[in-house]
Amino acid sequence: MTTIDDIPPIPTPDETARNEARTRLDGLVKPVGSLGRLEDLAAWLSAAHGTVPPRELSDVRVVVFAGDHGVATSAVSAYPREVTAAMMRAFHAGRSGVNVLAARVGARVRALDIAVDADLSDLPAAVSAHKIRRGSGSIDTTDALTQQQVAQALSVGRAVADQEIDSGADLLIPGDMGIGNTTVASALVAATLGVGAEEVVGTGTGVDDSGRTRKIHTVDAALRRTEGRHNDPVTVLAALGGACAAATTGFLLQAAVRSVPVLLDGMYSTAAALVARELAPDAVTWWLAGSRSTEPSQAYALKALGLSPLLDLGMRLGEGSGAVQAVPVLRNAQAVLTDMGLLTELDLG
Amino acid sequence: MTTIDDIPPIPTPDETARNEARTRLDGLVKPVGSLGRLEDLAAWLSAAHGTVPPRELSDVRVVVFAGDHGVATSAVSAYPREVTAAMMRAFHAGRSGVNVLAARVGARVRALDIAVDADLSDLPAAVSAHKIRRGSGSIDTTDALTQQQVAQALSVGRAVADQEIDSGADLLIPGDMGIGNTTVASALVAATLGVGAEEVVGTGTGVDDSGRTRKIHTVDAALRRTEGRHNDPVTVLAALGGACAAATTGFLLQAAVRSVPVLLDGMYSTAAALVARELAPDAVTWWLAGSRSTEPSQAYALKALGLSPLLDLGMRLGEGSGAVQAVPVLRNAQAVLTDMGLLTELDLG
Repeated sequence: MTTIDDIPPIPTPDETARNEARTRLDGLVKPVGSLGRLEDLAAWLSAAHGTVPPRELSDVRVVVFAGDHGVATSAVSAYPREVTAAMMRAFHAGRSGVNVLAARVGARVRALDIAVDADLSDLPAAVSAHKIRRGSGSIDTTDALTQQQVAQALSVGRAVADQEIDSGADLLIPGDMGIGNTTVASALVAATLGVGAEEVVGTGTGVDDSGRTRKIHTVDAALRRTEGRHNDPVTVLAALGGACAAATTGFLLQAAVRSVPVLLDGMYSTAAALVARELAPDAVTWWLAGSRSTEPSQAYALKALGLSPLLDLGMRLGEGSGAVQAVPVLRNAQAVLTDMGLLTELDLG
Repeated sequence: MTTIDDIPPIPTPDETARNEARTRLDGLVKPVGSLGRLEDLAAWLSAAHGTVPPRELSDVRVVVFAGDHGVATSAVSAYPREVTAAMMRAFHAGRSGVNVLAARVGARVRALDIAVDADLSDLPAAVSAHKIRRGSGSIDTTDALTQQQVAQALSVGRAVADQEIDSGADLLIPGDMGIGNTTVASALVAATLGVGAEEVVGTGTGVDDSGRTRKIHTVDAALRRTEGRHNDPVTVLAALGGACAAATTGFLLQAAVRSVPVLLDGMYSTAAALVARELAPDAVTWWLAGSRSTEPSQAYALKALGLSPLLDLGMRLGEGSGAVQAVPVLRNAQAVLTDMGLLTELDLG
């Protein structure tokens, strides 16, 4: 069983660089603090890179962890589960939302079949090379995964992060695809924070009131079924998560281990971040929240993580499509620290 | 005197294109509505361009209207008025915040001396070619401008918009520079909306509590001095505005006349937009709010205009530096409508 002992130490961001960045920011040609969050981000990035100014973020990677969920058969989604596999082909064809938005910032998108309940052998073999199983268990009636599958999925996520970083990634964005995944993410947040299903469940991809009621019942049943097993994050991933949640958790942890900044996306990656923090509390220092989701469970998870999203565009698509739009903001923070003039250069006559 | 009769008719955005965009958005490979504000923006831009998908926004221009204010001598700012002229040289050298941020999106920045209280003859002659006067009157004790100067400044703003549009601009961003300008903008918003000085005055570039108290007294004195003259927007610009406010107002109106979208920046351009709407109510259909300012007067003006900013990054720099960061969001809206696949293309097995 993967425990906190298996996670390598999380490096500490460089506080000297952070302070040096703050001093430089105060000397730029602008009122002190007038760039708002850009200044916080510039200092954060300086601490992450250990240098002022920080390096440019030129190689951004989105990894979409895709999989199906047993709960999708309980009609918790506005879409049939066949959409998950169909979307894998859309990612491959470059036609999804995240493909289009990632292209705008020059980010690469890699969509991985972690637990899609379909045969994707028409796609390149690499797409399904890390597959854990076909669909995760329906959490209202059974565990999503075995403990061994959780360990395997955590390892997959960590290995994928390593692959991206070793090939040059300087900013990672976790994406998600899977019909039913807002139901699962709600259960993870509810169990981790001890909040009721009614509080965290939203309308996901667009269910109506009766759909939301079914989702609440499903999450509630899952929470009751697993009562007493909510204290250990690996057990929570097995009982209530799924292969994609566990892989995303591993991905987020390894990014922190490798000191590579992460922009969290919507409710799914934020739920995984909440679980990941239980495994390694310091990992959160390497993550930023890219995008506010309309799903209530994300707000609970963000508050617990102490993160505030850079963008609030009413997004609820997932895929990494919100976070990738925040890349320009982070790059702007780097640019002002690098390129703006200094007050001492001003000619005050 | 410039009146509403002098403003050419404001074109109406194309509702057929807006509806066609909505239909296309609903058919893209994503849950209906899941792109949130991107969908609203895509429909808005389609209506503005009268075509689906809308054209790319490839030629973005920031025009910084710079000038000094008599009130700056009342110690309402954390910075001396000499900074205004010094910043004109920083713009020219490409070292300001907006220079750096505009470069990130390929936008051009043009900084114009409308009422700087300095001789800028060391800069190219074009910089001061539209100068109305050296500094506007201190609004607590005297009118900012004569009615004739208001008319002249409105014409300058309209002419500048025409120049930018005639040379290819497809998106305009009004910027501002001028020590004391948050005091003036607060007075404009307070007079136009009938709100008290205490409500609208903020800390601007970073004054302390006693500085804010001085600002409130200044705005309050200005409002009392001009009581009974707050109903006509041209009179308000003369009494409480300044040459930059009037020029920005003309710029915003002419963009609407020419059907060119505008991204409003912070509190100064939003205050000008509020006044401009009094002159031509339909003009607001051509404007978007790019960036939320920390100044309370902007929140009042935005609410009255019915606009919600695309970004909320705690900015209070002005210059157009907030709005220019929202350009990628608007471009993303265009891109999803243009490049995403259709649900009908999905292979559901």
